[in-house]
This record gives sequence, structure tokens and C-alpha cells, in this order.
Amino acid sequence: MRLNLAPKVATITASAQCQQMFELLAQDLLSKARCARLTTAHGVIDTPAFMPVGTQGSVKGVSPRELRELNAQIILGNTYHLFVRPGLDVIKHFGGLHKFMNWDGPILTDSGGYQIFSLSKLRKITEDGVEFQNHIDGARAFISPEIAIETQAALGGDIVMALDECIPYPCEYEYAAQSAEMTTRWARRCKEWQKENAQRSTSNAQRPTAVGSAVPAESRADALGTAHTTGRQLLFGIVQGGTFEDLRKQSAQAIVELDFDGYAIGGVSVGEPEEEMMRAVEWAEPLLSKDKPRYAMGLGTPPQLLEMIARGMDMFDCVLPTRLARNGTAFTDTGTLNLKNAEFARDKRPIEENCVCPACGGFSRGYIRHLVKAEEILGLRLITLHNLRFYLELMNRARAEIERGTFDQFRKTFVADYKTRDAMMIE
Amino acid sequence: MRLNLAPKVATITASAQCQQMFELLAQDLLSKARCARLTTAHGVIDTPAFMPVGTQGSVKGVSPRELRELNAQIILGNTYHLFVRPGLDVIKHFGGLHKFMNWDGPILTDSGGYQIFSLSKLRKITEDGVEFQNHIDGARAFISPEIAIETQAALGGDIVMALDECIPYPCEYEYAAQSAEMTTRWARRCKEWQKENAQRSTSNAQRPTAVGSAVPAESRADALGTAHTTGRQLLFGIVQGGTFEDLRKQSAQAIVELDFDGYAIGGVSVGEPEEEMMRAVEWAEPLLSKDKPRYAMGLGTPPQLLEMIARGMDMFDCVLPTRLARNGTAFTDTGTLNLKNAEFARDKRPIEENCVCPACGGFSRGYIRHLVKAEEILGLRLITLHNLRFYLELMNRARAEIERGTFDQFRKTFVADYKTRDAMMIE
Repeated sequence: MRLNLAPKVATITASAQCQQMFELLAQDLLSKARCARLTTAHGVIDTPAFMPVGTQGSVKGVSPRELRELNAQIILGNTYHLFVRPGLDVIKHFGGLHKFMNWDGPILTDSGGYQIFSLSKLRKITEDGVEFQNHIDGARAFISPEIAIETQAALGGDIVMALDECIPYPCEYEYAAQSAEMTTRWARRCKEWQKENAQRSTSNAQRPTAVGSAVPAESRADALGTAHTTGRQLLFGIVQGGTFEDLRKQSAQAIVELDFDGYAIGGVSVGEPEEEMMRAVEWAEPLLSKDKPRYAMGLGTPPQLLEMIARGMDMFDCVLPTRLARNGTAFTDTGTLNLKNAEFARDKRPIEENCVCPACGGFSRGYIRHLVKAEEILGLRLITLHNLRFYLELMNRARAEIERGTFDQFRKTFVADYKTRDAMMIE
Repeated sequence: MRLNLAPKVATITASAQCQQMFELLAQDLLSKARCARLTTAHGVIDTPAFMPVGTQGSVKGVSPRELRELNAQIILGNTYHLFVRPGLDVIKHFGGLHKFMNWDGPILTDSGGYQIFSLSKLRKITEDGVEFQNHIDGARAFISPEIAIETQAALGGDIVMALDECIPYPCEYEYAAQSAEMTTRWARRCKEWQKENAQRSTSNAQRPTAVGSAVPAESRADALGTAHTTGRQLLFGIVQGGTFEDLRKQSAQAIVELDFDGYAIGGVSVGEPEEEMMRAVEWAEPLLSKDKPRYAMGLGTPPQLLEMIARGMDMFDCVLPTRLARNGTAFTDTGTLNLKNAEFARDKRPIEENCVCPACGGFSRGYIRHLVKAEEILGLRLITLHNLRFYLELMNRARAEIERGTFDQFRKTFVADYKTRDAMMIE
């Protein structure tokens, strides 16, 4: 509880370095929820913020124009997917991910680690990094903390993530402890690489040779020559530690000591019970700098997002709105609708009354159901637009409620009204 | 040759009945190409016109808003597909196809016959009509000429098509002859049903019982109660006759004698050589009323469309722009591009220079290739928009060239420059 703060207090950020980067605007009295403004090379992000996931250089089913019309302020790009296809050299040839996909707003790229652990074959993890075979053509590659940042530098995202090991659930304490410590050592190497190369990009001095690199030498030489210089990229560190309190706290403290531009909670939403997920965040959060953005990775349902906001989280990414849309599932304030159900065949109502998304503005549940049943692409397009708008609007509402000092009641009412269904589980 | 006409002559239509429905605006001197304006219940269509195919109540991959932005003036709906799924009663419940799919422009519906012959199982054709099992759930149904028009009346299209038998290629002369005669008898029944029921919809008298109907009795009773009255629907007759000159001419003459609102050439683009297709149109065309729209069904490539325009055809529908887009193939003035090819991986150019479509306005060939290879929906969306715009723009150019009196040279130059590739074949 932070009852000593008056509502709507605009907190001054702690360090001069971050003053322009992250500006706290309001702090909820009854929870740790806060409103802030995060400034990146390609624009400003109002937090709490939801980031639609543009896995392979495209938010599935949605055009950049539609994302702009939905007022999406930032999207996520998956480094692993882009590295595998079309390949880093191709994206660099096009001048970075922004130009490649025609999105001029902020982009956050992940490190690629999560997909290496979840998708690729024959992983071999050492202190140096991870050797793996990709899931498309089985080509071997190696990623180290340095290569992860170098790769993201080339993609040109506004926010880049340190390489971490995302351990599965459940996981033995001993493995989780050693892994979290390695993640910290990797985080330090990421930070050092960026610091060194940001300077080098200015001084044009020779860079050290990577231990082993998935990036062709020629491409590496060009990595800092793009318009998106390393120095302008914000680097976030990632807290790990599994479901263990002492490990989460140790990890948070160690990562914060490295002084990143922002902090992410990783290793959540990997199959653990929701209470475990909440605890992982609650343990780490008090150790995270108040004047830096906090990013809860890869989650979650609408109620989970509000609970995370109440626990001091600022940024989110999740495939649920796009993935469930492709399965015919739409989000509403009172839970999800599976539009494939026969009950909607003659339903003339929009997915949700009073929704201003492009789907609800012109199309009935019955028509969208027909499209989904007939496997017409327009069906998943319309539901995707609705779902993304729902998630983005949920963040708008959260911000407004925080600013009004009424967030905690809003969260409780929303969560109580929302009926989680089976379809809500991330597969 | 119609050298006796000066360029840009606005021909006065022959009958008072059709004066407002179809207005000839210009006639090419060196070919049979003409410009006209066709007025329907939901709007005006400038001909030559291309109709994007909205098979199942959606032009595949495209939203109604995008169709409007592409300046599509009319789309086609497939009665068979809509009858099978979601079913006629559902579309009537929503107030007709326009409201169901949120498209307020003109719609042409086909009779359903073509898909019954190409998709359904266990067809049994008799003089009465066709008994068939649909390809989705195998449910049995029966369609007669009367039911075909009744069904289209319920869908509410602006232009409806008589039921015909579309014979395959090749086909024996004897079968083609008998089939064409039956198609004429069916056309007469379609015409009579519409005439009788247009009156009945005013007088509210009892209608005759159909021999057998795929439409539930309750639905039939409502069929004329929709906002889209039968009387406002334009009914087109269809010329058949296979690849036989005398049969094509006999069919054309017999269909024209029935005095439809417009005339279609059916049974073309069914696998016959291109020269056979051209001849089928050339044989029938002189017999078709000059003051009525002519519709060449289910074709074709861009050069074929220009050749058909030169042979006096006004309206076209074809799945090529949408279907090939889903395969990664884009149309250009010099032929098709298969964007999956490796040569495009680093191509920074748009699909076609100077094209103003939404794809060429923001996306490179390389990016679109990546999307197609990665099976991202945005890839086929972008190519679909480009291809539809290409077809629609080709009609715009044809109209402008006809009005300028330069169409014939335009056609020759375009056809010579255009390289037909294997991908152009309709599958």
C-alpha cells in the first residue's frame, strides 16, 4: 500500500538519464497500478500498454494501417522467427524491421530466447550461449547474449531484450537457481555489449570477435550502420527464478543492479497456476526501480492484465487476442464468445454492444459466425480487429481509472464480471 | 465492323423499358467494344465491368470497406454456396445478402447451377430440375428453374441469373443440343416465374406449389416479403450450346426471344482452348440485343477480358485475381509474378510501379514474398487487393480507351506485352 501518495501525483523520475525516457504520471492509492509515458525512438507509449504480437513481421491478419486505426502504440517482433525467416540479412537489406513491415511506430523485439527454448530442436545450452537447430529447415545456429543484442540492433527495434533462459514449469529448485544466475551473467554481457558497441558505433573502432555467431560476418559489420543505432535502443533486463521466492528476489536485485532501461518479468505464463504467476511478480516487483518501465512477458487474459497492473506492471504482450480470433473466439467484458457456436447463427447483434471496432461497426455475430464456419479469412480478420481493440481499450480504461483514482474498484468489478472459459487458456 | 458510327456516340437504347436500365455511351469503331451504364436497385455500374467474386458472402480476404475503396461497383454472390451454408433462411433472417454481408452496392447472384454441376455429388438432371447432394454435409436438395429464381429473390441480388445446364468440355453434339434446348425451356420458366411472382408480390395472391423445393415452405412464403422485391431484380438469360456454331446461334436466338434484362454467355472457360472460347462468344454475340448488357461468365485472364470486350461483352466475373493471390501470384501489365520465387526476396520495388493499390503504396515485393512464404494472412490480403485493383483498373482503362476511340490499339498493345504464364490457367 502506498497511501502516502495523493491521487494523480505526477512522480518525477529519479535519474536525469531516464527523465525523458519514462515519466510517471499517476499512481493508484489502493494498488501498485501506475500511469506513465515511455518515450522511444519511434514514438511515445502510454502505459499500462498492450503490445500486439507481430510474430513474423506481421501482426497476424492485420495490416499496419489497421494497427494505426486501432491506436496501437507499440508492437512486438519475434527475433527468433525473423532470424529464421526471412533472415537477418534480408531485413537489414530493407533498412530494418520498421521499413520492412511498413510500421513507423515503436517496436519491441524479444531476444529470441523464448522461441529457441519452445520451438527449436536440439538445444544445447552452455555458459557461452545456446546452440540450436531451427524448426523450419533445421539449420544450426548459435546465439549468445552478445549475438542476441547484435541481432536486435540490426532489426532496429526501439526496445530490445536481454537474452535469458526461460525455464519450464515445473522446474527443480537447483536448476532454477543456476539458470537464474546464468541469466544474470548473460544480462551483464548484453549490457556490456550494447555499451561497448554504442560507443564503437560513434568512434567507429574495431569490435571484438564474437565467440560464435549466427550472423554472417558481413552482416555483423553492417549491424551498426543502419539508421537505428544501438545507442537509441532501450535495453530491458529480464528477471527469472521460476516459482521460488528467494530466486525471484535474488534475480530481481541482481538484474536491477545492472541498471537497465526497463525490467521484464520472464518465465511467467509458462503453464504454472495463476497464483504462482501472481506470486512471481509480487516477489520481484518491490525490488524493481519505480522509475523504470516494468514488462510482464507473454500474458495474459484480460483479468490477468488488470491484476498485473495492480501489481505494478506497465507493459504486456500476448498472442491471445490474435490466436483465439483465428479459432473464432471473441473477447467481451463478460468473457469470451466462441462464435462458432450454433447459438449465434441468427444473432443480429455485434460481438459487443457499444464497441467501436471495425467488426462491431458493421457486422453481426451471425455473419461472423458464418465466415468462421465457412473458413473465410474475413471472419478471423474481423474477430482479430475486435480482440485487439478490446485489449487496447482495456489499457485505455485502466489508465483512465488510475488517473481518476478509481482503478482498484474498476479492477475488482471487471474481474468479477468476467467469466473465464476454457478457451482462454494459452495453448 | 461498325464504321458507320462516329466515335463517342451515345447510343439511345431501343426500348422505353430499358432506357434507364442500360444506357450505351460509346461504341468502338474498330471492334465491338462499347461503354455503357447499367442501373440497378443498389447503384450504377459502368461497363465494361469486372465483378469480384464473393463466393460465400465474402470476397475472399477482402472487407466491404476495402471493396469500396477499390471502387468495385458490383460483386457476385454464389447462390449454391450460400444455399448450402449458412442457408437461405439465415440470410433472409438478416434481411437479404446485402445486409448480411454489409455491402450496399449492387450484387449479381448466379443461379447455383454451375456449382451444382461442378461441386455437388450424385446429380440427377431431369426436365423438372436437378436433384443433388451438397458437397459439405451431403444433404439432398432439389433445384428447379422456379426455385433458382425464388432463391435469388430471397437473397435479394440486383441481378439474378436463369438456371442453365453448364455442360463440360468436351461434350458430344447430341448432348449439347438437347441440353441447350432444355436450358431454353428452363429460361422460359425462370422468366415466367419472375413475371408471375412480381405481380403476385403486389396482388398478394397465392402462388403455385413448386414441384419440389429445396427451400422450406415457410421460407418460400417469406421470399417475396423482403425489402428486395422480385420486381426490381434484373433477370439475365444464359446462352449455351457448347463448342458448336449452330447450337450457340440457336441458343442465342431462343434466349433473346424470351426478352431478358441482359444476356450471359455460359459454358465458356470450362477447359476448352481459348480459340473455342472466343468462337463461342463470336457466334452468339451478333444475335444478342445491342441495347442489353452482355455478360461473359467466369473468365478470364486480363488479355482474355480485353478480347471479350472487343467482341462486345460488357460484364465479367472471375476468381483468378483472388485465387491466384492466395497462391502468391500477382498481376501486372506484363504478366503475372509468382512472389514466392527467390528472385523477389530482396526486391524493394512494389508489385507494380505506379500502381496506387494499398499493397503497392506501402509494401515491397520482398516483404510480401516473406509474408507468403511464412503463410502470413497479410500476404494474400495484399496481393488480393493488388489483383482486384488490377482487374478493376483494367476495366477503367478499357472504358477510357473506348471513349477516346483508341481501344483497339490499346487491346493489341496490352495483349502483346502481356506474358501469359502457367499460373494463369484457371484450376
